[in-house]
Amino acid sequence: MPNHPNPITVVRLGYRIGRDPRINTHLGLVARALGADEFLVSGDKNNKMFDTIEQVTKTFGGEFKTNHLESPLKWIKKYKSDDNEGGVNGTVIHLTMYGEDYRKVVNEIPKNKPLAIIVGGAKVPASIYRMAHYNVSVGNQPHSEVAALALFLDKLQDGKSIEQSFPNPILEIIPDIERKNVIDHTKKEVE
Amino acid sequence: MPNHPNPITVVRLGYRIGRDPRINTHLGLVARALGADEFLVSGDKNNKMFDTIEQVTKTFGGEFKTNHLESPLKWIKKYKSDDNEGGVNGTVIHLTMYGEDYRKVVNEIPKNKPLAIIVGGAKVPASIYRMAHYNVSVGNQPHSEVAALALFLDKLQDGKSIEQSFPNPILEIIPDIERKNVIDHTKKEVE
Repeated sequence: MPNHPNPITVVRLGYRIGRDPRINTHLGLVARALGADEFLVSGDKNNKMFDTIEQVTKTFGGEFKTNHLESPLKWIKKYKSDDNEGGVNGTVIHLTMYGEDYRKVVNEIPKNKPLAIIVGGAKVPASIYRMAHYNVSVGNQPHSEVAALALFLDKLQDGKSIEQSFPNPILEIIPDIERKNVIDHTKKEVE
Repeated sequence: MPNHPNPITVVRLGYRIGRDPRINTHLGLVARALGADEFLVSGDKNNKMFDTIEQVTKTFGGEFKTNHLESPLKWIKKYKSDDNEGGVNGTVIHLTMYGEDYRKVVNEIPKNKPLAIIVGGAKVPASIYRMAHYNVSVGNQPHSEVAALALFLDKLQDGKSIEQSFPNPILEIIPDIERKNVIDHTKKEVE
C-alpha cells in the first residue's frame, strides 16, 4: 500500500438486507479496489453479497477477506486494545457527515498501526462516536458512504489508492484509449 | 468551482428502476455535493428518486438541476456541437473501467468549456465510447460508479471538491470533533 503499509479493515455497521444490497456490495468492492484488506459487515447476514465480492476477488486477483460481524462494539474495543488475545492496538476512524475535515485528519493518523474505517448505517449509536479515535467527514453535505470511503482511502494513500497490486488474476483489464482490453489468463499462450 | 469554472453535467445511462434505486440516488447526491450543476438520467423514469435529491437541495441549499433524458446519444451530439440551437461545445468524459488513467486525463481537459461526465449503466453502447472525447478509468478493478464519479470530480477540482458553496440552506452541518452540530436556519435568532 503506497501510503499506509499496515492492514486496513472497513467495517459496515447496521446493514439491512432489503434496503442496501448494492450499496453494500459497492462498499466492499471499493474497499478491495482501493487498498483495504478486509470488509466486515454487522447487521443482517447476507452470504450472497459476500459471494459477489469474493467472486470479484477470485476473478480479478489479490487477497481480500469478508466476514459478518456479530458485535461491532465488542470488535472495536478489542481492535483498539493491545492485549494478547487478539488486540492489535489499531486506530479507529468513523466516517460521518458530522466530523472533522478528512484532509486534515489524514495527516494525524499513525502510519505504523492497523487502521479500521467504520462506515455508519441507518442509525449510528453515540458510543461509536466516542470509541472512534477520529470522527471524520468527507464534506458536510449528504451524499454517499461509497464516495466518502473512496475519497478517504485515496487521501490516506496520497492520491495513489488505485495503484494496488492484485496477484494471480484470471481476468486483467489493461487501460486502453480505443477499446475494451482484457487479458484472460486462463487462455495464456506459452510465454 | 475551484478548478473547473464551467458547468458540469453528470449523465447516468440506462437506469433500471428495480435494480438501481439507491445507487442512482447516491450518484445524484455525489454529483451535487462535489460540484456538478446538473444530473440527467436516461432509462427508466423515476420521479421519486429525483424528489429525494431535490429535497436534499431544498434542505441543504444551493442550486442543482435534475432531469430525465430521453435520448442520451442525441443529447451528447448536441452537447458537443457549437450550433446555435442549444449546442454548448462541451467536453464529454465517459467513465469506464476500460479507459485511461483519470489522473492523466484530468490535466488534458479544457478548463474553459462545459463538461459532461457520462456514467455507464448495465450495457454501454459502443457509440458512447466513440462519441466521448475521453474514455476514463478510475482504476481497472471493478468497484463502483459512485466512487469513480467522486474520485474523478475531486481530481478535476484539485482535491477541493468538498469546498462548494450551497447558498440559502435550511439546515447546515458544522464540522465538529465532539458532537453532531447542525444549524437550523428556520429557527435563527435575531443576529
